[in-house]
Amino acid sequence: MQDRVMDGEALAAFLGREFPQVAADFAIEELTADGIVMRLRVAERHLRPGGTVSGPSLFALADVAVYLALLSRIGPVALAVTTSASVDFLRKPEAGRDLIGAARLLKLGRRLAVGDVLIRSEGAAAVVARASMTYAIPPRP
Amino acid sequence: MQDRVMDGEALAAFLGREFPQVAADFAIEELTADGIVMRLRVAERHLRPGGTVSGPSLFALADVAVYLALLSRIGPVALAVTTSASVDFLRKPEAGRDLIGAARLLKLGRRLAVGDVLIRSEGAAAVVARASMTYAIPPRP
Amino acid sequence: MQDRVMDGEALAAFLGREFPQVAADFAIEELTADGIVMRLRVAERHLRPGGTVSGPSLFALADVAVYLALLSRIGPVALAVTTSASVDFLRKPEAGRDLIGAARLLKLGRRLAVGDVLIRSEGAAAVVARASMTYAIPPRP
Amino acid sequence: MQDRVMDGEALAAFLGREFPQVAADFAIEELTADGIVMRLRVAERHLRPGGTVSGPSLFALADVAVYLALLSRIGPVALAVTTSASVDFLRKPEAGRDLIGAARLLKLGRRLAVGDVLIRSEGAAAVVARASMTYAIPPRP
Repeated sequence: MQDRVMDGEALAAFLGREFPQVAADFAIEELTADGIVMRLRVAERHLRPGGTVSGPSLFALADVAVYLALLSRIGPVALAVTTSASVDFLRKPEAGRDLIGAARLLKLGRRLAVGDVLIRSEGAAAVVARASMTYAIPPRP
Repeated sequence: MQDRVMDGEALAAFLGREFPQVAADFAIEELTADGIVMRLRVAERHLRPGGTVSGPSLFALADVAVYLALLSRIGPVALAVTTSASVDFLRKPEAGRDLIGAARLLKLGRRLAVGDVLIRSEGAAAVVARASMTYAIPPRP
Repeated sequence: MQDRVMDGEALAAFLGREFPQVAADFAIEELTADGIVMRLRVAERHLRPGGTVSGPSLFALADVAVYLALLSRIGPVALAVTTSASVDFLRKPEAGRDLIGAARLLKLGRRLAVGDVLIRSEGAAAVVARASMTYAIPPRP
Repeated sequence: MQDRVMDGEALAAFLGREFPQVAADFAIEELTADGIVMRLRVAERHLRPGGTVSGPSLFALADVAVYLALLSRIGPVALAVTTSASVDFLRKPEAGRDLIGAARLLKLGRRLAVGDVLIRSEGAAAVVARASMTYAIPPRP
């Protein structure tokens, strides 16, 4: 896999600058050998009746995690766009806990990148959701 | 396909009662022979840099559309949950226009329901996103 | 959408020439405004215990249908490859009948094409399977 | 996760008995803590022009691997059926090598089971394909 070109600080700064509406929802926990671990700070606005976290919030965590895993390798200049997502919702998250998404890049090609992510309640082993995401990478000079 | 058991008014009331956080984002345009047409009232909070509508917002429109198409057949008592989603993001939406999602139910079984949806900018022919959604239906007496 | 550049005869010839192992399994029923209708000639080798058609056979029908819908627009020179597939298996097919897959192209971009397909038993209304397929298109001169 | 109720020998016997058409294509390499590793014995009939392994063959490997991972936990009596599949094709496999699919169960519920699988050429690190599969489990007494 390509070397990392952005560290956690650079990724967090990018997130805050480019996605100010949602940056506060997320925190980078750790850069890993093949990806990233991110936290969704679960708040009232992410919940649905019964206390479950909404599908769009889980989607957002999956998307931002794989996206930052990708940017850590290709840098902030590239405007990658999500072209497809497949999400399985497996279990209701634990009440009152943040969600932790562990993403890994499976492919980083010239034009397409693919990664997947497992989402769990913080401190729990059971998987709440699984997602795979594809990004189109614009031509690079 | 099973007969319809909720009309547009009943579905809108259900949405407002059960999902008060997001009900104002959506409007039911039309019930169709095999599904429903819904509108996402695109507002600042749905946008991303460059004016595109965020992935989670498109996901939310797809999910609510197929979900209400399902409830129109099984009624509001059933607590159906989304078990999986597959979304393709095809084009950037037109700036300043609402999004229209046309959903159809493809299967309504005893335990699983599946539908798909095409999302377009209002008044445009090009498809902005395509999604298919699966729901688990709890056992009914 | 781009004009059609291959007709049914040209597509059938392409299929026979490039995919001789499987060409006899499939027949082109009809070119449609936005896609193609194809038949899987169901034979013993496509069946599983209980008489259902195997998942790989349904996958193959979906793939070939969207692929030929794409080639009908970009021509036989382009070497497009399947990059992702999402398939929902909805019902057991009718015993002893061929399967009919109706595919439509939803996007034909410079680098990616996306289509979906509904598969039914011949003469039946119920959908046996739904699939969406993405293809990467090599750079064209 | 539930304890294992079938070992490799029992799974291989089940495969040979229930899926005689394809059993010879596959071999069980190893039962793992949360799944199974399986081999596709790549032969001429799995290939496409250019020497790549066909999409349906990769689909079949993914399906059989997650399916046997599931049966190893619920036993051979249950007639589980594939309800959905999402597959990403990432790279062309290495010529002349078998394919190895490592599957893990992510959820084993009363009614639904979900697993995913990474497929690689034997001895290679790069991922050829990624898939996630969902199965409906019939009611158990």
